[in-house]
Amino acid sequence: MVTSSRSTSQTTSQYTPAFDQISPRQRQALVALLKPAGISINGPQPWDIQLNDPQALSRIVREGSLGLGESYMEGQWSCERLDILFERALRAGLDHRLQRLGWQQWLLQTLANPQSILRSRQVGLAHYDLGNRFFASMLDSRMTYTCGYWLRARNLEEAQLAKLDLICRKLGLQPGMRLLDIGCGWGSLMRYAAERYGVECVGLTISKEQAEYGSQLMGDLPVRFEFADYREYQPSRAQSFDRIASVGMFEHVGHKNYEAYFNTVSRCLKPDGLCLLHTIGKNRPAAGTDPWINRYIFPNGEIPALSQIMPAIDGRFVVEDLHNFGCDYDHTLMAWHENFEQHWPQLKSRYDERFYRMWRYYLLSCAGAFRARSLQLWQLVLSPHGVEQGYRRHN
Amino acid sequence: MVTSSRSTSQTTSQYTPAFDQISPRQRQALVALLKPAGISINGPQPWDIQLNDPQALSRIVREGSLGLGESYMEGQWSCERLDILFERALRAGLDHRLQRLGWQQWLLQTLANPQSILRSRQVGLAHYDLGNRFFASMLDSRMTYTCGYWLRARNLEEAQLAKLDLICRKLGLQPGMRLLDIGCGWGSLMRYAAERYGVECVGLTISKEQAEYGSQLMGDLPVRFEFADYREYQPSRAQSFDRIASVGMFEHVGHKNYEAYFNTVSRCLKPDGLCLLHTIGKNRPAAGTDPWINRYIFPNGEIPALSQIMPAIDGRFVVEDLHNFGCDYDHTLMAWHENFEQHWPQLKSRYDERFYRMWRYYLLSCAGAFRARSLQLWQLVLSPHGVEQGYRRHN
Repeated sequence: MVTSSRSTSQTTSQYTPAFDQISPRQRQALVALLKPAGISINGPQPWDIQLNDPQALSRIVREGSLGLGESYMEGQWSCERLDILFERALRAGLDHRLQRLGWQQWLLQTLANPQSILRSRQVGLAHYDLGNRFFASMLDSRMTYTCGYWLRARNLEEAQLAKLDLICRKLGLQPGMRLLDIGCGWGSLMRYAAERYGVECVGLTISKEQAEYGSQLMGDLPVRFEFADYREYQPSRAQSFDRIASVGMFEHVGHKNYEAYFNTVSRCLKPDGLCLLHTIGKNRPAAGTDPWINRYIFPNGEIPALSQIMPAIDGRFVVEDLHNFGCDYDHTLMAWHENFEQHWPQLKSRYDERFYRMWRYYLLSCAGAFRARSLQLWQLVLSPHGVEQGYRRHN
Repeated sequence: MVTSSRSTSQTTSQYTPAFDQISPRQRQALVALLKPAGISINGPQPWDIQLNDPQALSRIVREGSLGLGESYMEGQWSCERLDILFERALRAGLDHRLQRLGWQQWLLQTLANPQSILRSRQVGLAHYDLGNRFFASMLDSRMTYTCGYWLRARNLEEAQLAKLDLICRKLGLQPGMRLLDIGCGWGSLMRYAAERYGVECVGLTISKEQAEYGSQLMGDLPVRFEFADYREYQPSRAQSFDRIASVGMFEHVGHKNYEAYFNTVSRCLKPDGLCLLHTIGKNRPAAGTDPWINRYIFPNGEIPALSQIMPAIDGRFVVEDLHNFGCDYDHTLMAWHENFEQHWPQLKSRYDERFYRMWRYYLLSCAGAFRARSLQLWQLVLSPHGVEQGYRRHN
């Protein structure tokens, strides 16, 4: 492991005992907290926490999830199998005890709309424009940055292909249909749908790099990128779509905008059309957004709970189907992690050690969360008035 | 048609014009209202309304859904294909304009809990104790009084068998498991699961007739009926169940009791167990309960919307799957209607003409509502902590 050699170079002796160093009593409490999850500090298991700086502990106790991630990024602790560490911690319910939202976060969520049109541009800037070369080294050849479908897949390439085809089959795409992709990324779904199913596509994105790079990949296919926020997009009645797909974009919408989001779908979809919504989900609204993920990976993101989505769907759409394959995100993230580690030697000149640890922490902690079933992956199929004769899912 | 000969015997001349007889202007408005749905009054199509008493119109306008059903029961109007009449009316959105909840209904829903333990007994008395002979003549040989699964079925018998097997497969029943059936009816699911999958069953019912008749059918199978309200049922920890099924019972729970309902499921289910919830659904909470259905067919029933169910599921269960096969209820109800008409000659000595019209109206109006996609049939699969490695639906 790349990490092991690094972590051993940072011994506790490099750090002077600090004012807020954890007391023996607090340390005992922490050991007792971790015990039900089978996690030890400085233990021999690959998922044990290797403590490089004792200040990390008080920081974690004080700052919860944010302190946990930041102290890892700064090398205050290490762990060979972060994914298993998170799986075990979440299964044992440690998150409920550790999770604390700071008052700033609370104020933001309560009083402001963190996904206003102005602020929503931040996601694109902070995250997706990280560099197409970077993502190309981590993702499959189609640059699909969402959960794959592993039911019959043996590797990431097959899983992403299977996911794209699953969406096309669930939408019942037919030649000549028009497909809108809300949050189209680099256009992998549109390219696949245009090539294999003969449909015409429009994709909405708020990242200029994605739109430019994606457009280059499309060649002569009938695929158009629109640089537009979903709330601003207003096709004419004659330009409404037979099908809508939205894959891994709803996580950036925010619960205050769910009505606006589904209004966009209503506005753009034909009365006898179908919409497929592919989104990560959480098990309860109170779980909030993880502060570390919010700060470092997806600014202003918000994972939805079903009780938050359904009020905005009821009265607008019939829920034809809901398919949960969250465990497939575990496999997807582990495959991305493998690619990331493999390509790191070529990437490291452009990024620092802190970035390396941040990215590793992101991929593996999320893999553990999906494996522990704390996070879900839902595909919902929606129709404005119900499909005549009913809808049958394709697996 | 049995009805046609009856309705012609009641001509408008039998009725004297009444004080509240509809005015020509109101009649014009009604014709305009029905036109988008392609429905005429006294027209030649089998779904047209044949008016026997002009007072019916003002009654419908005044009393909405309740007046519509009651005036049909009393022979004030007739219709050969009630199912198509309702399908057309609902597709055209006439229900939103006609539906009016009386103030008593509103007060009941707002201030009281119509499904309190005391009142919930009323369902059993008013409806299910109608006579086992009556239901035996209408239902399949297993007496399954819920939606069948018609994907590969050619008739009612096959559809009900397929539904029972679908539930057993979705629950992954294995020999030796213990299954709780909340609202078990005559025990058709328990019998099937015990015979074919080797499981031990306990069924909750609030109808004494169902429990007695059902017990007789079970022979030596390890199946026990418990005469208990779900809220009162408290198995010991050691007696908790591997699997829970609840088929067509949730419609009697009422939204104020959803938390209590899912608390029962939590209390009775093992941490690694699965629950299958099979329920009719509506498209929006505001749709309320149809006043006619509430008065004549299912007193104190309440069809749920997903936005009403999910807040009670979030935090208690992971939604592993949601399958909507509402169109199959259209086929099921039409098959029941066919059986009912066929056996009416043998049944008629025990029931009156008003009952005949009531039952016909119930079966056909509901068939039309499912065909129009105003009503849904959902099967949800729930797990307390998420199935390890994920859940895959069996179709």
